[in-house]
Amino acid sequence: MIAGTPQPPYFAAIFSSQRTDGEHGYGAMAERMVELAKSQPGFLGVESARDAEGFGITVSYWRDEAAIAAWKAVGEHAVARRLGREQWYAAFRLRVCRVEREYGQGPA
Amino acid sequence: MIAGTPQPPYFAAIFSSQRTDGEHGYGAMAERMVELAKSQPGFLGVESARDAEGFGITVSYWRDEAAIAAWKAVGEHAVARRLGREQWYAAFRLRVCRVEREYGQGPA
Repeated sequence: MIAGTPQPPYFAAIFSSQRTDGEHGYGAMAERMVELAKSQPGFLGVESARDAEGFGITVSYWRDEAAIAAWKAVGEHAVARRLGREQWYAAFRLRVCRVEREYGQGPA
Repeated sequence: MIAGTPQPPYFAAIFSSQRTDGEHGYGAMAERMVELAKSQPGFLGVESARDAEGFGITVSYWRDEAAIAAWKAVGEHAVARRLGREQWYAAFRLRVCRVEREYGQGPA
């Protein structure tokens, strides 16, 4: 679902990943991380899509870089990231960026 | 597939969209747009995922904002965007941002 976000500037964390084969508890943890992120200060929204070949992009939106840093420091999130590196992802990339402008059409 | 990108800063165009039902020539045009984007000056890479419910995220990476503006001005791309607004997308959002930092693991 498209996230409704405020007027730029704000920040985005683009997480691109290729899943390994097998579930290994991934689905439950991914859902939990979305719920946990939503409860963090400065969280603005999240969008996520993964295709049939296991390639996925999740973009989370944040008020500022401090909010992203605080989210990174949450203990349960750190545990999930470690499991991600060890088990769930054959490869991943995290890019932190500043959203400068946006436009669109239809419901967010 | 994860895009190999240079050291930040560079720019990203995050395109999030919900497809309408039906094909309407979408697949062929989407492939053509990726090929056309790759031939543009300042293009750095592209990543794309769409799920079974028709929600997708495509992130294209560019050297600077001028490269994004030039890509937007390409005639064939403008035609595709018009068809997107009229036929292919129930909703979409385009966010232009400056990538500040990145890290990852595994093959790009």
